[in-house]
Amino acid sequence: MPDTRVTVWNEFVHEQESETVAEIYPDGIHGAIADALEERGFDTETATLQEPEHGLTEDVLAETDVLTWWGHTAHDEVDDAVAERVVEAVRDGMGLLVLHSAHFSKVFKRLMGTSCSLKWREAAERERLWVIEPSHPIADGIDDCIELDEAEMYGERFDIPQPETLVFNSWFEGGEVFRSGCTYRRGSGRIFYFRPGHETYPVYHNEEIRNVLANAVEWAAPSDDRATSSGGNTDPREDIDTSDERTVH
Amino acid sequence: MPDTRVTVWNEFVHEQESETVAEIYPDGIHGAIADALEERGFDTETATLQEPEHGLTEDVLAETDVLTWWGHTAHDEVDDAVAERVVEAVRDGMGLLVLHSAHFSKVFKRLMGTSCSLKWREAAERERLWVIEPSHPIADGIDDCIELDEAEMYGERFDIPQPETLVFNSWFEGGEVFRSGCTYRRGSGRIFYFRPGHETYPVYHNEEIRNVLANAVEWAAPSDDRATSSGGNTDPREDIDTSDERTVH
Amino acid sequence: MPDTRVTVWNEFVHEQESETVAEIYPDGIHGAIADALEERGFDTETATLQEPEHGLTEDVLAETDVLTWWGHTAHDEVDDAVAERVVEAVRDGMGLLVLHSAHFSKVFKRLMGTSCSLKWREAAERERLWVIEPSHPIADGIDDCIELDEAEMYGERFDIPQPETLVFNSWFEGGEVFRSGCTYRRGSGRIFYFRPGHETYPVYHNEEIRNVLANAVEWAAPSDDRATSSGGNTDPREDIDTSDERTVH
Amino acid sequence: MPDTRVTVWNEFVHEQESETVAEIYPDGIHGAIADALEERGFDTETATLQEPEHGLTEDVLAETDVLTWWGHTAHDEVDDAVAERVVEAVRDGMGLLVLHSAHFSKVFKRLMGTSCSLKWREAAERERLWVIEPSHPIADGIDDCIELDEAEMYGERFDIPQPETLVFNSWFEGGEVFRSGCTYRRGSGRIFYFRPGHETYPVYHNEEIRNVLANAVEWAAPSDDRATSSGGNTDPREDIDTSDERTVH
Repeated sequence: MPDTRVTVWNEFVHEQESETVAEIYPDGIHGAIADALEERGFDTETATLQEPEHGLTEDVLAETDVLTWWGHTAHDEVDDAVAERVVEAVRDGMGLLVLHSAHFSKVFKRLMGTSCSLKWREAAERERLWVIEPSHPIADGIDDCIELDEAEMYGERFDIPQPETLVFNSWFEGGEVFRSGCTYRRGSGRIFYFRPGHETYPVYHNEEIRNVLANAVEWAAPSDDRATSSGGNTDPREDIDTSDERTVH
Repeated sequence: MPDTRVTVWNEFVHEQESETVAEIYPDGIHGAIADALEERGFDTETATLQEPEHGLTEDVLAETDVLTWWGHTAHDEVDDAVAERVVEAVRDGMGLLVLHSAHFSKVFKRLMGTSCSLKWREAAERERLWVIEPSHPIADGIDDCIELDEAEMYGERFDIPQPETLVFNSWFEGGEVFRSGCTYRRGSGRIFYFRPGHETYPVYHNEEIRNVLANAVEWAAPSDDRATSSGGNTDPREDIDTSDERTVH
Repeated sequence: MPDTRVTVWNEFVHEQESETVAEIYPDGIHGAIADALEERGFDTETATLQEPEHGLTEDVLAETDVLTWWGHTAHDEVDDAVAERVVEAVRDGMGLLVLHSAHFSKVFKRLMGTSCSLKWREAAERERLWVIEPSHPIADGIDDCIELDEAEMYGERFDIPQPETLVFNSWFEGGEVFRSGCTYRRGSGRIFYFRPGHETYPVYHNEEIRNVLANAVEWAAPSDDRATSSGGNTDPREDIDTSDERTVH
Repeated sequence: MPDTRVTVWNEFVHEQESETVAEIYPDGIHGAIADALEERGFDTETATLQEPEHGLTEDVLAETDVLTWWGHTAHDEVDDAVAERVVEAVRDGMGLLVLHSAHFSKVFKRLMGTSCSLKWREAAERERLWVIEPSHPIADGIDDCIELDEAEMYGERFDIPQPETLVFNSWFEGGEVFRSGCTYRRGSGRIFYFRPGHETYPVYHNEEIRNVLANAVEWAAPSDDRATSSGGNTDPREDIDTSDERTVH
């Protein structure tokens, strides 16, 4: 799908406050992610917290097929109306990639209905993301697992609804496991939660991670002629028998 | 589980405004439901919209194992703080039965993360709830299906997340189908959405429906020694190798 | 995926024994299905029960991305070794469409692990396939539902494992419902069960049904670079502590 | 459910051939498991490969609510007819616990429809079974996780159908993860696959593991009045319009 339009959203705070982070992501985390998606040929734009309406106006969302979301330290600064607008866009069919610490974003929590809490630890430990469903398109091109030398740990229990498909399952050096690649549908939209990505590790420069991000965009993009359904008060499609003694017909 | 404590919640508006409804449910819809659950031996209380804090104080929820929720015309009058309190209680393990038009309640929408919209029609038509999972305890005692002579129609697409288990699937005289018995987990709590129950039809006097309600309470009740998990910053359970060149450990 | 190679398999018995069926499907049911898939641009071949090895040699399966299977009256005549070969090919990644009465085929029953029994009735009654997941690619291009004027009835309980995704849910004039579009994964292969298609009704000439068949082939086709996983005895990827008193390391 | 009748099946080969195993399980693996289930108050019998019909006659199965299955080195010696009898009993509602290396048993493979292959290693390494669904009754009484000092490793990809509920997720010292507690339904029967249990480690003497085994029996036991559904040719429950030009009604 070369015409898929992606908006890469980033709160863009750590990169402006920490030299360590700025060195790893000189163009921001959004820059690194956008670069990975452009390589696959998607029509990619970025948006950040600091822009008016966080760069996520009605117009921008109307022209976005898939939105990727990275946030960590500034979840509360995301305007409620913008968060709700994103949630509505997903329900209307926009794809959504929720990355790493965005598990605690307003957008993800509203779409899941759970606390989205988890265990965590920052100790530069090894992570290994095992492929659970090799036939899922998001895992295309990956062998048994992806190894990351340095990762923040996220551990179970991850308080999420049971995923529709568990694509990746992570092992951590310190002794925990984590459901690190989870698909959902909400309304007409497809959602992929993908765990890797702390700001102090160069995870989004890893080729396998970039491959998964691009696979996930492809999977989450709505098709041009997707099924349409309508709600509300509806006329019957069959005759309803009114010859009987049942009440008001 | 004879000691299961149930709180039956009802907005209790139609019964006070419409003679037709009052005749069908002289003790309120909550009265009929509570009666069904007492028959099974549960320790049952009721609460309504009109009470202070809608009868759902912290104390009441703390002593409730399973809450049943019926609402239709007054969803907006439910205080946001009380709705959130109920949502939190579910995540902490309280069971929840969401009945009929409560598909549009604040509580259900927050727990699902979707619009929960559907097609509907009020035409006193026939409904038939087919059992999809005969081995699920909520279907205990039911044969192939439950027939209701008069029902409001709810039709697909019902905008909900894919249920963990689809227990009942409804046929309607006018030509529609509906996933009418759906289980979910959110946090540590179990949720059952059950479709039947319009205020102008005596559905909650039907013995099979009452049987399902009691089965569902039994299924949704938390066990006394359910698993406990903690979140937050966590010490490793294994040694993390710090002899290498990886960054800050 | 213009290069997707499809093999359309048909037991091809009714068409040679019944004039009624031969009039509806002059080129066989496989001819009608193959025609629908060629229209979408797939590289399509057919195979039938009567051919040596039922036309499903190792070579044919090795060059098949997606196999469609129609059978009804001759399930027992399918050689066990061929059925097992097909099952293995699916586990290795070949897509499979199981059509209508093929619910009782050896192939489907082995892949499901259940009896696959159902209720049925031949009464030229109306069927309406409601879309349950509008965001699923198999439903692309369909509105609320597909209406078929004449269909054999299949009714619940359909004894299958819970589908990974329920895409269509059928209503029947005589009072039943049926999960008529179900996805599964087995091994590395994707499976779609699709209900419509009795030999005495011209269902496979219906444009919407043909559209769904082509969508399903697209969905079920394995990607060229799908993930690979290996089983068997495995060396550790981490050091296992052998300095302790635990038994044989 | 104090009246639940359990049959504990064991191939009972290692214990008779290896002194090491006989020391760990002097009464056989079946003896240890039966002991754990009797402690919970179930009416427990045992059966082994060496008995006529492997101790699993029609009569025995007819009086069994839940069967537990342990096998490893002698899967092929299980008679096909007995395996099929067990499969049929599960479909008719008998609960089934599939333990450890029984992932490769005839019974489990037939019920799953997949190869059930996995990675493995015998290195007395540490395993940690993390609770994924704290509200599932099988996890009752467990905290964050169960730790086992010595375990055989089983690693992903475990080639199984996606579980209905993933209850436990294992971490291994050598770097792998594994879905170690998985629920399924087949027909009217409930199945729980539970990973722990190698013959050279005293896993079935561990109190937490014994607790999970008893929880699982309780969960898998069929209820006395479970829903009944019938298949086959069926009369319509509604009038089918025959006044039109549709074909044979």
